[in-house]
Amino acid sequence: MKKIMAINAGSSSLKFQLFEMPEEKVLTKGLVERIGMKDSIFTISVNGEKVTQTLDIKDHEQAVNMMLDEMKKHGIINDINDLDGTGHRVVQGGDLFPTSALVTDEVEKQIEELIELAPLHNGPNLMGIQAFRKMLPNIPHVAVFDTSFHSTMPESAFLYSTPYEYYTDYGIRKYGAHGTSHKYVSQRAAELMERPAEELKIITCHIGNGASITAVDGGKSVDTSMGFTPLAGVTMGTRTGDIDAAVIPFAMEKTGKSAEEIVMNVFNKQSGILGITGLSSDLRDVEEAAEAGNERAQLALDIYVDRIQKYIGQYTAVLKGLDAIVFTAGVGENSDVTRAQVLDNFKYLGVEYDPSLNDGLRGKEAFINTEDSKVKVIVIPTEEEVMIARDTMEFGNIEA
Amino acid sequence: MKKIMAINAGSSSLKFQLFEMPEEKVLTKGLVERIGMKDSIFTISVNGEKVTQTLDIKDHEQAVNMMLDEMKKHGIINDINDLDGTGHRVVQGGDLFPTSALVTDEVEKQIEELIELAPLHNGPNLMGIQAFRKMLPNIPHVAVFDTSFHSTMPESAFLYSTPYEYYTDYGIRKYGAHGTSHKYVSQRAAELMERPAEELKIITCHIGNGASITAVDGGKSVDTSMGFTPLAGVTMGTRTGDIDAAVIPFAMEKTGKSAEEIVMNVFNKQSGILGITGLSSDLRDVEEAAEAGNERAQLALDIYVDRIQKYIGQYTAVLKGLDAIVFTAGVGENSDVTRAQVLDNFKYLGVEYDPSLNDGLRGKEAFINTEDSKVKVIVIPTEEEVMIARDTMEFGNIEA
Repeated sequence: MKKIMAINAGSSSLKFQLFEMPEEKVLTKGLVERIGMKDSIFTISVNGEKVTQTLDIKDHEQAVNMMLDEMKKHGIINDINDLDGTGHRVVQGGDLFPTSALVTDEVEKQIEELIELAPLHNGPNLMGIQAFRKMLPNIPHVAVFDTSFHSTMPESAFLYSTPYEYYTDYGIRKYGAHGTSHKYVSQRAAELMERPAEELKIITCHIGNGASITAVDGGKSVDTSMGFTPLAGVTMGTRTGDIDAAVIPFAMEKTGKSAEEIVMNVFNKQSGILGITGLSSDLRDVEEAAEAGNERAQLALDIYVDRIQKYIGQYTAVLKGLDAIVFTAGVGENSDVTRAQVLDNFKYLGVEYDPSLNDGLRGKEAFINTEDSKVKVIVIPTEEEVMIARDTMEFGNIEA
Repeated sequence: MKKIMAINAGSSSLKFQLFEMPEEKVLTKGLVERIGMKDSIFTISVNGEKVTQTLDIKDHEQAVNMMLDEMKKHGIINDINDLDGTGHRVVQGGDLFPTSALVTDEVEKQIEELIELAPLHNGPNLMGIQAFRKMLPNIPHVAVFDTSFHSTMPESAFLYSTPYEYYTDYGIRKYGAHGTSHKYVSQRAAELMERPAEELKIITCHIGNGASITAVDGGKSVDTSMGFTPLAGVTMGTRTGDIDAAVIPFAMEKTGKSAEEIVMNVFNKQSGILGITGLSSDLRDVEEAAEAGNERAQLALDIYVDRIQKYIGQYTAVLKGLDAIVFTAGVGENSDVTRAQVLDNFKYLGVEYDPSLNDGLRGKEAFINTEDSKVKVIVIPTEEEVMIARDTMEFGNIEA
């Protein structure tokens, strides 16, 4: 049995989850928030109870240090050398990482080079890796990229119709995101269907606050809705999703904002469900408001569903047919209403869902299609941390 | 019998076509090019022969004057008062024109107000209208908007997921284009199918150098691929079609260009088929190059087909099924190869085309589906001028 730590490091946060592998048993998990600020918050789960402390934690190194100390203190590990490997979520692997990778100095350098493609994420991801490598220099550390699962997209899917040099000179292409989640749920769907992934056409809907839809053909991503950045695709909590790019210069003139401000602040943070409703980015709030008669809330829900349906429709065309639709992430796992509305348009594909299986289903694995449905519909809670732990075993060459 | 002139005025050009209505018989047609430049070119069709003159034509008024004189000279009309009405293509009708409109001073003012939404087109369109109104003040002149057919889109289709104020304050929404063509071919498809338009779900593919795809439900446009501007949607001759808007600030930094330059010059004029291949915006050239082994030419063709398939797939989801696919415009009417490749993915919808009907079919009305196909596939040469003439009769209150 091996102890593997899965890490998701943000600019001021660090999420961790410790697994016993290959059993995939969660030994503990926790979160460090407000790193580098006053009153940082450290939370760790001990015997199913959350233990929280507030204190100043100046950087990721100190956060890692404290995490290891706390695990010892609570008897979760006896010694930091009990750890056999760590796995790190990295948002952007660009063209360089078609799979997860054992971190070396060279890999660290490459992750750093990719910061320009994911300025908000790759830097903090790298800080997490560096802190663990410093603290635990003798175990393998593995980088697990959000983009790797999409590296199998054909060039005709990932290339934009810009001058070709925009790709070769600047790296402008579709990279996609949420790859670890799409990979996990598509593999899990094949298991649940008791069929080899190689013969299945699956559309995976990872719809949470961020959202992306992926076409999975024979176990491989062949297209995905997020693009060069996570702005593209379906309508999200605060992001526009797809929009005519020519809106930008027009909006610049109208608002006096720069292109950067419009994309980073307006389109990424003030748009989507929040922008349409003016109320909230949280679908639950918007569902309530719609029920109370708020027309813009209802409009936002209609748009949200419409855009998901469009991606399911287009990816069915890409796949030339469909065996299963998978719902995962916050909304996909928990909103029976959204699932029902999305599915409602697809009777022409032979999609029939069973309200008695769908209604009230929250956060549990289940088929929600009728027995006669030609297409399976499956709710699968995503487990990105499990995938990270698995890849850490594999790419860290750790024997079970 | 009435004589109706259909006009398409550009910044330095004026296309005209004279109809005898309601027979829709073409009496003549022609083109004035290089208006306002040295060596303008005037072309008119006389008894099926093209007659061309080169001379300086200083403005649209002079062009209209000359056109009327030449028609008299060639005995096509006896007097300019033989004309019963003129109809004018106007690119952008915004939220103001859900149908064609009899031009009044007020309508002229509204078309002018909409120039900011179509800076390259509405101004010249208006110049054409003004020239004809001045010359022929006693007959009706009708404005026929490229956007009107799409005015039936529900708000959930035309609204972007930006802050709602971007729509209410700045008019930022999807307007679409090629409406006159989509309307003509969808109506014609219903006639050819001998079924009422009201009960049909049709996807119309207007694919030429510019290209758009429309979902027509019960005779009404419910969604279309072009957006706030004609940049959005499928890959075109020189336009990107859909692209992650976040590419713009990144490309600005890389190239030193402004957002306006990137959108107007790079994304509209140097992208699409031309941008990917570096060779040509003309699909025929690219097909030849691909056959000769040029990989980027083949890639461009693959992308071109992929993007059209994605819109057919997504609009089938919007329509909840499909009765017919219509191909029109330059590529749609003439490229059997493109049609075959596009159709190839849709066997899951019951689309079966007949190679013996498709191969070599160019510019002619024909069904190309097999008898057993669940979905009809129809090639229909578009007739935007006929639609303009029809609307001129209707909205000009001209009795047949």
